[in-house]
Formats: sequence, C-alpha cells, structure tokens
Amino acid sequence: MKFTARLMDIDKNGVLMHRSDARTVGVLEGDRVRLLNVVLGESATAIVDTTTTMLEKGCVGIFHRTNARLQLKDGTGVEVREAERLASLDLIRKKLDGARLSKDEVLAIVKDTVDDNLSSMEMATYIAASYIHGMDMDEVEHLTRAMVDTGERIQFVTHPIVDKHSIGGVPGNKITLIVVPVIAAAGLRIPKTSSRAITGAGGTADLMEVLAPVEFSAGEVKRMTEKVGGVIVWGGATNIAPADDKFIMVEYPFRIDARGQMLASVMAKKFAVGADVVVIDIPVGRNTKVIDVQEGRKLARQFMELGERLGIRVECALTYGESLVGHAIGPNLEVQEALQVLEGAGKPTSLLQKSMAIAGIALEMSGKAAQGQGYSVAEEILRSGKALEKLRQIIEIQGGNPRITSAEVTPGQHRFVVNAPLSGYVVDLNNRALITIARAAGAPHDRGAGIYIHAKKGSRVNQGEPIFTIYADRNWRLQNAVEVGRQLMPVLVEGMLLDRVPSTHWV
Amino acid sequence: MKFTARLMDIDKNGVLMHRSDARTVGVLEGDRVRLLNVVLGESATAIVDTTTTMLEKGCVGIFHRTNARLQLKDGTGVEVREAERLASLDLIRKKLDGARLSKDEVLAIVKDTVDDNLSSMEMATYIAASYIHGMDMDEVEHLTRAMVDTGERIQFVTHPIVDKHSIGGVPGNKITLIVVPVIAAAGLRIPKTSSRAITGAGGTADLMEVLAPVEFSAGEVKRMTEKVGGVIVWGGATNIAPADDKFIMVEYPFRIDARGQMLASVMAKKFAVGADVVVIDIPVGRNTKVIDVQEGRKLARQFMELGERLGIRVECALTYGESLVGHAIGPNLEVQEALQVLEGAGKPTSLLQKSMAIAGIALEMSGKAAQGQGYSVAEEILRSGKALEKLRQIIEIQGGNPRITSAEVTPGQHRFVVNAPLSGYVVDLNNRALITIARAAGAPHDRGAGIYIHAKKGSRVNQGEPIFTIYADRNWRLQNAVEVGRQLMPVLVEGMLLDRVPSTHWV
Repeated sequence: MKFTARLMDIDKNGVLMHRSDARTVGVLEGDRVRLLNVVLGESATAIVDTTTTMLEKGCVGIFHRTNARLQLKDGTGVEVREAERLASLDLIRKKLDGARLSKDEVLAIVKDTVDDNLSSMEMATYIAASYIHGMDMDEVEHLTRAMVDTGERIQFVTHPIVDKHSIGGVPGNKITLIVVPVIAAAGLRIPKTSSRAITGAGGTADLMEVLAPVEFSAGEVKRMTEKVGGVIVWGGATNIAPADDKFIMVEYPFRIDARGQMLASVMAKKFAVGADVVVIDIPVGRNTKVIDVQEGRKLARQFMELGERLGIRVECALTYGESLVGHAIGPNLEVQEALQVLEGAGKPTSLLQKSMAIAGIALEMSGKAAQGQGYSVAEEILRSGKALEKLRQIIEIQGGNPRITSAEVTPGQHRFVVNAPLSGYVVDLNNRALITIARAAGAPHDRGAGIYIHAKKGSRVNQGEPIFTIYADRNWRLQNAVEVGRQLMPVLVEGMLLDRVPSTHWV
Repeated sequence: MKFTARLMDIDKNGVLMHRSDARTVGVLEGDRVRLLNVVLGESATAIVDTTTTMLEKGCVGIFHRTNARLQLKDGTGVEVREAERLASLDLIRKKLDGARLSKDEVLAIVKDTVDDNLSSMEMATYIAASYIHGMDMDEVEHLTRAMVDTGERIQFVTHPIVDKHSIGGVPGNKITLIVVPVIAAAGLRIPKTSSRAITGAGGTADLMEVLAPVEFSAGEVKRMTEKVGGVIVWGGATNIAPADDKFIMVEYPFRIDARGQMLASVMAKKFAVGADVVVIDIPVGRNTKVIDVQEGRKLARQFMELGERLGIRVECALTYGESLVGHAIGPNLEVQEALQVLEGAGKPTSLLQKSMAIAGIALEMSGKAAQGQGYSVAEEILRSGKALEKLRQIIEIQGGNPRITSAEVTPGQHRFVVNAPLSGYVVDLNNRALITIARAAGAPHDRGAGIYIHAKKGSRVNQGEPIFTIYADRNWRLQNAVEVGRQLMPVLVEGMLLDRVPSTHWV
C-alpha cells in the first residue's frame, strides 16, 4: 500500500503507523514491514510502532536509521507491505524451548542483532533463554565466532600478539595501565581494547581517557600497536565484536552475567585482534562474579577450552577479589595510583604484585621469560623505567600528553573524610557499597570523583583516624555521595557498624 | 541537573538525552531517570534513550506520555536525576534465576507493567523466564489476581453470571455468536469479552464488529448485560485485566503460549466480570494448542483448580480441533454462517453441534437444564427463534442494525476458486495454511476477505469440483492470497499434493 512518508527525528530503526493503517496493511505493533522508495528502488525492513494520535491516517512516520537506507524525502510516497517473518525469531523460539543452536543459527541471530533487525524485546528473549538454558561449549564457540565474523578484525603480520582481560567484579583494578606497558616494553604487541564502566566506577577505557583519547577504529589500533607495541583503547569504538555491546545493554537492567555469554564476549575480542596468547584475571571472592576457588577453576578450564578451539593459548590467574586493588576508586585517583607505581613508588603492594604477576604470566607464555621468571622479569622492566617510558609512548600515539606525571592527576576538590568512630581493626569493606558511593560522587563521568581507602580490610585504625575519603568535582555530587554513604555504611570496624555511631561523624 | 525540555511527538513513555548528558547525570541508555517540573511540582520516571545527533547537549527530549504527567512546555526547564532502581527488576531477576514469586512480588511486576514503568525489553525477560521456568498454581493464582486488581471489575447484583471461553487454535470457531444468545435467551447473564485476531483470521470481536460496535467500557458492559442478558464486546476497550494485552504483545513475536500465562489470562477476565460459572472450550488436535486428549485433560484440571481457588465453577469441553468449525474463515463469511444457523439452517453440523454442546454445559451448570438435558434445551432455544431474537437485541443495544439477515452479510467480490486436480478424498486440510491465506487475502481487517471450504477433510471430490474459494475485498489482496496459497498448498487430495499439479489450476 502507498503512504506518505513523514520523517521522524528519532535515531533508531523503526516506523510509526496509525493503528488502523497498520491493520489495513495486516500488521500489528511489533510486526515488521517492508518499505520501498519506489523512485530510488531502495528498500528496508522495520518494526512497526502504532499510534492513534500522533499521526494522521495515510502517513507513516519513518525513523532516522531506517530512512538512512530508504533516502525518502518528507512528504513523498512510500510503499509499505507486511514483511516476511524474520528467521531469527524462530531460532530464538527454539532456544526458548531449550534446543541447542547450530553454528549457522547462532550466526543468524548475531547478524540480525548487529544489523538492528531484532528489537530490544526480541534480543532480551534470546538473552534470557540463553541465560536460563545455558549454552554448551559448541554453542559458546559458535557465538564467539559469530561475534567475530559480524565485526572488524585485525590481522597483524608479526606474532605473537598478547592480550589480557580481567573478568571484573573487584573495584580499583587499574592493573591494565601497568601490565600493558610492561608487556609492550618487553618487545611484545598488545592491542588492548577495554570497556567503559557500566555498573562500576570506572572501566579501563574510562581510566585511560584521563591520559589520552581512547576512541579509535580497528585500523588505527593496528597501526598504533605496530608502532609502539601497545594501545589501551575503548573497544566500543573499534567495531570489534559489536554484537557484544548490544547484548550487554539487554543484560544490564537485570545485571545478568550469563557464563556462556561472558566467555564468548571476552574471547571474541581476543580472537578478533588476532591474539595468540591471553592471560585472564579471575578475581575470586564474595561480592565478585566468582565466589570461590572451585568456581574459579571451572571458569578457567572453560576459558582454556574455548581458547583451544579458537587456536589461542589461554592461562588464567585466580586473584584475590575480597578487597580492592590498591587504595583508589575513580578515574583520576586510580590513574594517579597506577602512575605512582610506574614512577617507582613501590606501593601499594596489592597493585604492584598483581600487575607483576599478570604481566609475568604473559611474558612466560610468550617466551620473554623463562618458566617461573616472569614476575621478576616484569619487575625489572618496571624498575628500569622502561614501562613508564612505554606508557608515555602509548599516551603520545593516542594523542595525550606524554609528559604527564602522577602529581598532575589530582582528585576532585570537594572532599569528605570518614573517620574511625572507635579504635580497632577494619573487619569488612563492602566493595559494592564503595562503588555505589563513588558513582554517587560522579564517577566515572566526573574524573575527579571517587574514593580513597586509607584503611583497607585488616588494617588497625585509631578512633578519629581517617578510614576513607570521598572526592567529587561538584559539591552537590559530594553531598549525594555522603548521603548514599550514610545509608550504605560500607565499612565495619571491629564488628561495630558505622550506622550505630552518632551522625555527627558524617557531617 | 537542569535541562531544557524539548517535547517530542512520540506516543510513549520515555526521554531522549544526549549521550554525554546522560553520562553526566550518571545514567546509560535503558536506565531510568526521575524528571521534575519544578514550576508545577509534577514528577515522572522514564527510561532513557540516548543520541549523539538528534539533540543538542543540555536539552532533553520528552515523549508524549511522560509529559502527560509532567505538563512541561517546550523550551522550559526540567530537572533530571538518576531514578531509584525499580524493585520489579530485582523480582524479574529472581524469576530468571528460577525462584517462585510471592503474591506481592507478582503484583509489583504486573502493576509496573500496567503503569508502563517496565520497558518491553524488561517485560520480555519476565515472560521468557516465566515461560521457561513455568509457574506453579500458587503463582498462577497470584498472577490472575494481580491482573484483576490492576484493571476494571464488574460487580453484578443478580447472579449467576455465566461466561465461556475458547482457548483457540482451530479456525472458523464462530460459536460465540450462537452460544451467547442461547445462554442469554435462557434468562442467564453472559457479559462476554472477546479478543481481536492476533495471528488468526478473525477473533470473536472482529466477527461481532461486522454486526455492531464492540468497544465499550466496563460500565457499559454491565449496563447492557443487565438490560438484554448478554453482550459480545472487545475486551481490549474495557480495561479489564489490561496487563494481559501488554504481555501478549511481548509473546507475539515468538508465538509463546506459556501455559501459566494462558490460565491467568483467561481466568482473570472471567473473575473480573464476576463470573460464577464458566465453560472452557479446549480444541484438541494437531496444529492446535493442545495436541492430544491427555494434554487436554491436564489443562482442564488446571483450569478447574484455578477456578476453585477463585470461587468460580469451571467445566471444560475437549472439542475436535483437527478441522475447522463450519466451512467459513474470515469475518463476513463466518458471521453469515453463524446467522444462517440462528435463522434455522440446520447446518453446518460441526458448527451447530459444537455450539449446542457448549451452550448446553452452561445451561446445566446454571440450573437451566437438568443434567444431560443441556444440549436439547439449547437446541430448543435455537429452534424457537429465541436465540436469533436475543442476538438481535444484543446487536441493537451495542448500536448495530438488529434487522440484519445472513443474506446481507456477503463475502468480498474478488474470488478465486481452487478446484480438485483429481478425484478422491480430501485427506488433509492444513489449518495454519488456511489462516495464512485468509490473512493474505486481507482478513480480519477486510471483512469480506476469507476462505470458504467446500470439501472438508474426509469429503469426496471429483476432478474439477471446487475444494475451496478465496474471497477478498481488493483485487491485489486476492492476488497475494493466491500467491501465498500456491506456496503453502493447504489441501491434500488422496495423498497427491496440489503442488505437483500443473500451475494452470491456480491461474
């Protein structure tokens, strides 16, 4: 049927039809129609939204991304027909009913995800079904390959290519800023793509952005890595495994952390950059994604099996996830702490040791250190100043200021110190609560926002000594964070909850 | 934070923000923000969509339904903050992980569904989780009551109130047009709410709309039923159990037919109109929702148990679902066939017998017929002309023409006859294919569109005799339907597929 096109200023795929027009065409809200620009011969498929008030009959509202293909002008004619049923819907239905999907079937779903053919509602059904029924390793491999095949890939001439990944869940994990330059300074190549924070107070990409731009195409990542040995960029801009970002958006409201999805997501990104050797950091502890060592070992075996299927050598490090890495949470604070280590501060120990351990494994796997010698080789690279020098090169090639020092990366000017209400040992620090407070203070967007923990778990504090400081770039944010902190009470000193303490300690 | 409101002409809840503004506020796409019209003191919560191109920074696009609450004027100030996490999300997450939900938990989800607080993506996750993990009868009861409590209810003074329902899956099931007037003519009250076709060629509401308007409020349904004993209206307009329509939209792309959801959906509507006695028609057969008698009995027991919990007496009739009811599919054709039965045609037998059987059960349950006498009492009401007279009253009170006769309700003028390619028995008719063809011809929107089956399953046909006729109101629709029919070949004569036949039979 012929309609009049009304261009709509919405940056999505989709069309809006009057409900009675939709019925005339034979479709309901949520159905797909095929649209045809008869003049140019361009066509597109889009999901129908209906209205009875926003559009007169005979007109069809066409959203921005749909018209990018159709090239219609406002007010011109457009042919609208019921579209054929999307095959992916039947495949998702199969998964809902507990079936295993074949390689081609998974690819079809991932392709329709990347091409915006599936609505978020339809993707959500796929994710929920995959989460509940799980995926076997065949299916995880199919998903990994499908994610790689529907995005950009980098092919390096020289090998080995090294990569690292932390599955997350522990706050303050700024080790990438140290590990990548150590590995690159050893003469290896490490094209590290990282994520921005979704539920955290700062992803590695957010941290690196304090020092340099992080948005680059896959081609730029390749060129920069070939030049200086490594980069630290935001994966979202590279178009590597773009399906992953879309799946993550759907998982986000429910904090779904489906194991198969996670394996595929991590390994697709490694596979797409041509990694030969990958070290995976699996923090273990309550309040992280992996609560005990048994589960950690199981996950490690799955990563290794998937790596083997993809021709990637994988080693996993189960790391201590009960307490934050270092003392700082939030972009500037974390970057400052990492720079201090690179500059030779020799502490904090947790950050230093974890970084050296992870880098060391990669050095051993790539033949840059003998078995058992990786840690000390990494330490030597750090001590020599070569790692700092390498980070400066990376900052420079990404367009940042290579002469920056830790002293110049300062936290926000608005501060609130929380003191110990009594003398004793810090017996618990709630990671999740610390992150929530840091976010309330403005992290990761406000780079100066965050928390510095003076007394970590196990430390002795005297009454009135600072336990932690909240930083913010804006005062109202600080007040917010203090209010959130008052409710969450993230610190336990000798069994005495802070919320039993007169509130004057908080004002 | 303060933004400038830009009203957007989209009939939805939601706001559009520049991506960097969203990050400043601390939210991502899919998160919720709290909006405040500081001048009027009005506030609303809405899900954030982000853009980098469609909106300048500092402005926030506010969709129609969100602004219905906020009452902002274009260009005025609006305060935007991160909203508190919606409790329903954690409940849906619980269901994802296989937990049973309590009464209050189910109610919270249903309430947020009806109030448009959940996105379609979030609803889809709930539906998928409920489908895969299933619901026990407690949870089904909670869902039923929650659906009732979040919509309109009708309370009649005089009882009993009778109701009927067919769970669907068999085409041409126009029995409601006969059953309702028979029951009402017996002096009972039957406030029948029906659905429109979603995947079918005509729901009961689509059929009734051929005869009279079907969109009425719950109050009007009550008044009309009290006056003439019965109505046949579209449930969607009554605001009875409005959550159901929203769930159905989510199930629709995947043709999900979750058992618990279906039980709740049917019984909520009966409970909300105050039904005391309900007859449920369960068609059994391949290509219907219930494939064998065992499954039918199990479903019947579930309906009865749920009824008992709600204080409703339920009986179920397992009916023959292998072949269509009567000969006609599509609004006018079906209405014509039903009117012919009411006018005394005495056939088609399948339609007549099924209608009398279902009506008879209701009459026995309500004490209007002795046990075992319901069928013949119903037949007597039909034969006496009282049922036709009652339908005329119902048509009149709903605003239609009460003098209409079957001869005036004619199918579309564009016709295509499919003849038998050889002599033999019709050994199979594919219900699903017939419906698809009827929809391609324009049903249910085009009232004259549909299919008339001359030779049902088991009939003997001679070569060249008509097997079925496709009708359409518009010629291009007819051509479409013929093309679809050519691909689907819905009829099998003596093991010979029609698609083996030279295509001249189709042109």
